[in-house]
Amino acid sequence: MPYLLISTQLRLEAGPTYVGDSDSDPDLMSYLGAEEVKEPTSKSFSYCTKLVPRKVLNLLEKRGWRLVTSSNIGQMCIWTLHRELD
Amino acid sequence: MPYLLISTQLRLEAGPTYVGDSDSDPDLMSYLGAEEVKEPTSKSFSYCTKLVPRKVLNLLEKRGWRLVTSSNIGQMCIWTLHRELD
Amino acid sequence: MPYLLISTQLRLEAGPTYVGDSDSDPDLMSYLGAEEVKEPTSKSFSYCTKLVPRKVLNLLEKRGWRLVTSSNIGQMCIWTLHRELD
Amino acid sequence: MPYLLISTQLRLEAGPTYVGDSDSDPDLMSYLGAEEVKEPTSKSFSYCTKLVPRKVLNLLEKRGWRLVTSSNIGQMCIWTLHRELD
Amino acid sequence: MPYLLISTQLRLEAGPTYVGDSDSDPDLMSYLGAEEVKEPTSKSFSYCTKLVPRKVLNLLEKRGWRLVTSSNIGQMCIWTLHRELD
Repeated sequence: MPYLLISTQLRLEAGPTYVGDSDSDPDLMSYLGAEEVKEPTSKSFSYCTKLVPRKVLNLLEKRGWRLVTSSNIGQMCIWTLHRELD
Repeated sequence: MPYLLISTQLRLEAGPTYVGDSDSDPDLMSYLGAEEVKEPTSKSFSYCTKLVPRKVLNLLEKRGWRLVTSSNIGQMCIWTLHRELD
Repeated sequence: MPYLLISTQLRLEAGPTYVGDSDSDPDLMSYLGAEEVKEPTSKSFSYCTKLVPRKVLNLLEKRGWRLVTSSNIGQMCIWTLHRELD
Repeated sequence: MPYLLISTQLRLEAGPTYVGDSDSDPDLMSYLGAEEVKEPTSKSFSYCTKLVPRKVLNLLEKRGWRLVTSSNIGQMCIWTLHRELD
Repeated sequence: MPYLLISTQLRLEAGPTYVGDSDSDPDLMSYLGAEEVKEPTSKSFSYCTKLVPRKVLNLLEKRGWRLVTSSNIGQMCIWTLHRELD
């Protein structure tokens, strides 16, 4: 699983940060302090952590993830990270 | 065909993901589980897969595609990938 | 002319793609199948091709252009390319 | 703390620039001339400097930070920087 | 001053392009054909040139500036450039 997407809404200096979907690696999600959240407008669930995105990026770097690019959808900022294949 | 564009709307943790236009490589589209969709507001068709963008990025890396940059149009997030010429 | 900007509106899987301004290289514009378009809200003109942005990126790579970054203005997605100086 | 996020609103040529959250490095915040600001809509606080983002980027480079990518949320432009681990 | 921000509004194929703030290098601003503009909603002033962003990028490359990333605020597209320290 070489690519990872994280996102946050409205403000950078406060969490939460979305860090995964229903098929993400549970060990990595636990490492980020993320829990499952069910969105009312969606059939799937997301993993969400109370950490700010800055801390999530820092934790992910310790596991070998590198930031490639950032973008947004509406009021949500999105960072895409990459890790070399094991 | 060294460049590829993929896009998703509104939420990262749920599909679908748009992965091609009417002239995209059918073998690659099939590999991504994508099917043709006809947009009512357009004369052309798109290829669309139920996979989340994270999984599409991971599948594409196995075929040699590398993420270059991301952007957005309205509520749609867009990733542009590149593969070295054969 | 080492930098080039291309842009498209609303949907990725359909053209047209804007590829130049009134001072762009006419040979390169012709290579991309672009024609002059006069915007009613502007005193200058643009070059526009019916090709989708994916095909424009692929054609430009054959001439040595490399994608650097993407962004947007309103409903328009913008890619900035670079080519080493001759 | 290898990643840093800075952001500004509406205009590039005027500050202020947001440079940290409540857990950012106080020495780095002081170096950037940043002070704590409490947002009425948030339980956390931010660090904010009167400097324009251009000057913040220049000061950060002197301390080894390198710009990786930029994005936006609403009317706010966001730059993500990285520094190699000590 | 290793970082530079340039921006344009609404359309890529027409100027003007904003290239500096009130503390930017006057020689570089003059090289880009930029003049001071006072925004009614701001206490500071900006440097603005009639050139399109493509030409500004090309002129800046001749002086050693390299494009790193692009983003946007509202209807404004922003490019961030970098130059190695002298």
